[in-house]
This record gives sequence, C-alpha cells and structure tokens, in this order.
Amino acid sequence: MAQNIYDNPEFFAGYSQLPRQVHGLDGAPEWPAIRAMLPDLVGRRVVDLGCGFGWVSRWMRDQGAASVLGFDLSENMIRRARANTVDPEIEYRIADIEVMELPPAAFDFAYSALTFHYIRDFQRLVKMVHQALVPGGRLVFTIEHPIFMAASNPHWITDEDGHKAWLVNRYSDEGERRTDWFAKGVLKYHRTIGTTLNTLIRTGFTIQAVEEFAPSAQQIETDPELKDEIERPMMLLISAAR
Amino acid sequence: MAQNIYDNPEFFAGYSQLPRQVHGLDGAPEWPAIRAMLPDLVGRRVVDLGCGFGWVSRWMRDQGAASVLGFDLSENMIRRARANTVDPEIEYRIADIEVMELPPAAFDFAYSALTFHYIRDFQRLVKMVHQALVPGGRLVFTIEHPIFMAASNPHWITDEDGHKAWLVNRYSDEGERRTDWFAKGVLKYHRTIGTTLNTLIRTGFTIQAVEEFAPSAQQIETDPELKDEIERPMMLLISAAR
Repeated sequence: MAQNIYDNPEFFAGYSQLPRQVHGLDGAPEWPAIRAMLPDLVGRRVVDLGCGFGWVSRWMRDQGAASVLGFDLSENMIRRARANTVDPEIEYRIADIEVMELPPAAFDFAYSALTFHYIRDFQRLVKMVHQALVPGGRLVFTIEHPIFMAASNPHWITDEDGHKAWLVNRYSDEGERRTDWFAKGVLKYHRTIGTTLNTLIRTGFTIQAVEEFAPSAQQIETDPELKDEIERPMMLLISAAR
Repeated sequence: MAQNIYDNPEFFAGYSQLPRQVHGLDGAPEWPAIRAMLPDLVGRRVVDLGCGFGWVSRWMRDQGAASVLGFDLSENMIRRARANTVDPEIEYRIADIEVMELPPAAFDFAYSALTFHYIRDFQRLVKMVHQALVPGGRLVFTIEHPIFMAASNPHWITDEDGHKAWLVNRYSDEGERRTDWFAKGVLKYHRTIGTTLNTLIRTGFTIQAVEEFAPSAQQIETDPELKDEIERPMMLLISAAR
C-alpha cells in the first residue's frame, strides 16, 4: 500500500495552506502548461488519479467532460472534494492507486497531477491505465522532475563563482527517496526520464509531448520567487496516447 | 557555420588520444546501450552524421548495411576515416551538418553520435533528417545529456553531507554553452529533453526509446572511474521512427 501521508494531521494542516490548495488552479504556476497539453474534453469520460480536493475534476466537467471519476488515497482529500462538489456526474472514491484496478476501456481520458512519483510499481500502474482507456484515449500526467528528486539530499547551493545551483546525484540509482515536506520521511520513488518514457512506450502508449515546467517571463514578473525554477525543472509533464 | 573545433591542431591532438578514438567502439562505455537500440541493418542505406574516424560507419557495414554515407565537418576526421576504410560502399564527405541538405527518402537509417549538441538549429536538422528517411525509416542519435551540460560551469562538488554531487543551473535557459575541452571555448547548444523530444514528435517522428546512459555493475568493476556516471547522466540516447 502507498504511504498515506495526506491523512497525517500535521502534514494535512500544512499541505492545505499551499497556494494551490487555497487558490486552486490559479495557485499552480504549471497549470497553463498542463492546460495546453489537455485534449478536448467535451463528452469525454475522465478518470482523475490522485484528485485531491477535486479542483481539476470540477474544471474538466466545466470544460464539457461527460463524467469524472476521481480517486485519492486520502480520506481528508475525498471528504473535502465531496464537500466542494455539487455535480451528479463527478464521483470521488477513496482508493490506493498502487493496487487499484479500473474496468477495461471505460475512459477516454486519464489525468493525474503530482501523484505517480508516490507509486512504487510504475509499470503496473501504466498497464492498468492503458487497459482502462479506449483505443485513441489520452493520458496526461505530471510528476516531480527526476532532476528535482534524484539526490540523496536535494538542495540549492551557491558555487565558487557565486552561481546558485541545484545538486544532482544518484540519478541512475532508481527507487525510494525520503524527504521532509510538512512531515518527516515522506516516501517518493525516483525514476529516470528514460524509465518513465520507455515504460509508457513499451506498454503501448505513443508519447505526444514532454514538458519540463519553467515559468514564463510574465509569471516571474508577477511572482519573483518563481525565478529559481529556470535553474532546474521541478515538474515533468507528459502527454501520451493509447 | 558550425564551429570546427576538430580541425584545431591542439584540440585534435588531445581528442585523438581519447580511449574511444584509440580503441574504437570498445573504448566507448555507452556503445552496448547504443547497439541495443539499433535496428536490423541488413540491406539498409545508412547516413552517419558526424562520422568522425568512421568506427561506427565500418561497424554498420560489417552488420550488413547496403551502404554508408558518412559526413563530418572536420577534414582531419574525414582524412583519417578514409585512410582506415577499404570498402566501396562506404563514402565519407566533408560537410557542415548545420547547413547541409540530403536527398529526399534516400536512407533507411540515420545515425549520429555526440554531434547534434554542436548544432544551433535543431529544428532545421530534424526536418532535414526526416525528409531524407523513407517512411518507416529510423533515427538513432546520442547527445551530451542536458543535465551534464546545462550549467554555466558544470562540475562536481562535495556537499555538506560528504556526497559527491553535480551542479545544475540554467536548465530552462536554452542556447549557447562554452566549455574548455582540449581547447578553450568549445561551443555547444543546450536544449532541454522536452525541446529535443517535442521537436522530433512535431516533425513527424515517433519516439521509440530514450536512454540516459549509466554503466552496468560489470562495467564499473572493469573501470571503477565509471562509477561517477551513476550520479548524473552524461549522455542521452534517443531512438525514433519516421
């Protein structure tokens, strides 16, 4: 079973105050980049893996999706998502994506934001999503970028020349990474970009786009703290077609 | 025109002593990984972009390629390649890949090793290769990995915890990078993985595999210096189909 950090009260209290949880999609600087990768949603049956508070599930229905089925491991998340949603065509369920199954060819589009890096067995996950999509169905997901999460202790330093730099090591040493983020020992799984893409390709997906999120000049003007994101990518955005 | 560093005598003297130039394919630790990505070559018309001394051009003919046309900017390289080759179906030509053209649908396979990161206009290059391949034709190429070459001053450090780490910055700031490698100011072009893959996809290629070279345990046993390559990938290997 995946680690359920989101139901740790200390973690949840901190996490709930993130700009993206308070302000929704406008609080997520990568959202315009994700949105540009999404297919036309009108009439589509959508599954949202790691739906959290349901911000994107609701947005997809607003874009014309026929139905959205959102899954999350966290009771806290699903409770909040249900409280915030009045729509008979959106359903939220508690489920562990690490072991869950989906019915075959039941969805036109699968979406997942910042969830798959918590999943140990990526190959099983990709197979499960592939069989749940109709032929021609689409998958768009975001994960923490392996450059961001590879190191034993990922952090910034200032080098001898005064340049800010991000530390990378253990890049090809895939597997568990522990990090302190609102709680101690949050468990994630590092995979190389090669492993992520080749797993999709070998399962039968065609890669349609790969984006390494960087803020625009305008975003940096509005929020100068985003400037560091130019130095190293924090998120990897992938679009694939069955 | 691309910078012709290979005809700088100082550079060429140093470069010619690299294990991969002295020992050929056995001196290139990434060669087994490249070889695993290559299509069946029997009867194929091959173009080798940045053929250097012609090690791979000759190997591909040995594998049954019908013909190999090798291009390199460097007169030094082409002279040596010609001197080392006795095969009427291998031809070497001096050409600047930055501006060269190839006849349409004239090749079944395009290969390039550690050359494309010297090319400023990657989109032009990809279009040129795409139109030169027959439908179903394949492209396999290697470049320096963007993690390896992104930083203003890429180098190792030892962090506060005593871990060796590679510095990354300017990852999303694409364009010129200058480095000192056998000569001062060798000019390369940094592109993100996203840009590299999306340029291929938008031009009509299907991505077949993406490898970030890491040495095997056996390779590290034979050559302990390779151990550092686990920490950060030095090379990106891409296989695509027209």
